[in-house]
Amino acid sequence: MSFIQKIIKSRSKRDDYLFNELKPILGFSPKNLYIYKKAFVHRSTKELTDIGNPQNYERLEFLGDAVLGAVIASYLFKKVPSGNEGYLTQMRSKIVSREHLNELGRDLDLIRLVKSNVSKSKFGENIYGNIFEALVGAVYLDKGYKHCKKFIYKSIIKPYVDIPRLEGKITSYKSLFIEYCQREKKEFGYDVFDDTGKDTIKHFSVKLSLDNKVIAKGRATSKKKAEEIASKRAYFAFQEQISKIN
Amino acid sequence: MSFIQKIIKSRSKRDDYLFNELKPILGFSPKNLYIYKKAFVHRSTKELTDIGNPQNYERLEFLGDAVLGAVIASYLFKKVPSGNEGYLTQMRSKIVSREHLNELGRDLDLIRLVKSNVSKSKFGENIYGNIFEALVGAVYLDKGYKHCKKFIYKSIIKPYVDIPRLEGKITSYKSLFIEYCQREKKEFGYDVFDDTGKDTIKHFSVKLSLDNKVIAKGRATSKKKAEEIASKRAYFAFQEQISKIN
Repeated sequence: MSFIQKIIKSRSKRDDYLFNELKPILGFSPKNLYIYKKAFVHRSTKELTDIGNPQNYERLEFLGDAVLGAVIASYLFKKVPSGNEGYLTQMRSKIVSREHLNELGRDLDLIRLVKSNVSKSKFGENIYGNIFEALVGAVYLDKGYKHCKKFIYKSIIKPYVDIPRLEGKITSYKSLFIEYCQREKKEFGYDVFDDTGKDTIKHFSVKLSLDNKVIAKGRATSKKKAEEIASKRAYFAFQEQISKIN
Repeated sequence: MSFIQKIIKSRSKRDDYLFNELKPILGFSPKNLYIYKKAFVHRSTKELTDIGNPQNYERLEFLGDAVLGAVIASYLFKKVPSGNEGYLTQMRSKIVSREHLNELGRDLDLIRLVKSNVSKSKFGENIYGNIFEALVGAVYLDKGYKHCKKFIYKSIIKPYVDIPRLEGKITSYKSLFIEYCQREKKEFGYDVFDDTGKDTIKHFSVKLSLDNKVIAKGRATSKKKAEEIASKRAYFAFQEQISKIN
């Protein structure tokens, strides 16, 4: 049995479960699983640390919030050289807003990993964003700033952050895409279907086709959202052509 | 002429001045001086970037503030394992308070490097902290997060951050030190003298002696502050013995 196999063997069933669920979310194997476990402990468990302090995700949430703030600040600083301090501050607030982070945490369905002694319906809306921040804190402790920055780029910036939209310049990628097709006389279609899979919450998938060729896909908890995601992906793939309309 | 010599040669006189002044403050040689220059440009100069945007320290201040927040959060997270989220948030606010950062910027006399078109008396009190934050932003861009963290440890955490004091448990290191001496029947003395040196602001130095041996020194803009600094250094050197009194 190899060293790695022995380590894996020594983990409990719950650890195995967490490890396997985290890997695809993180995009890498957690090094120190112990750190990540804390990110999913709700205060209702009344768990204590070795030194007798309450152990829950709240300390990690504090850390993750701070690291997230720094990474997003540095992203915006480089991405928008023309933005002054007021602009950068406003854009960051939008990106790390409770609403935005809750959406993200919900899409990752992080709540299924939470350990608690109360019914999950009692958590309140912000649990999604809070757990996501705690996860960012755990990644920072486990792998350092650089790696955590990569994780934030992968999980927030790439799929969710879109400067023109945050600036209020684009309200719907779907309508932008449709305008483009009409202008260019191209056929398009949104093919929506149920795709709940293993999720407990209902999900939808959509295939967006252009001239009968699927060019982008989207998956989310509502049809509208899934269509927007697919349209946004198409927008980024065809950015030059589409933006000519504007 | 070596490559490095050529680079140094190609710098203007103002660049040379900035480079030489920054080196001792930073504790390392700036790699990209161009970045640091921006940290000292006041908006009154109305300088513009290559792409025609206003160029002053405010964007770097935004970035530095965020990086500082993350570094202090991570420091507190590790330093105080018993602190809950509320405690950590409160402690961080104290450390990065305007008052604290202004004191720091004033001690480093960063204002002497600022380029502006208005009298320095018109800057307002917060210029010190703002410039310090801009400098943190510049270090982050020039050398990356790890190095910037080191700079923050060296310039804030080591000389200024002291958990018991921030918690309000210790209000004066001088009185703590004196109590210790009285209890242990040791002779002590604070030897204060003018030490303005090259600074434009008046400075004082103090030598703190224990049983006629100098054990710590302090330097600041007031006698009281210099005595506190020396007492604090003595406190950290003799921490175990002194804390027995409490």
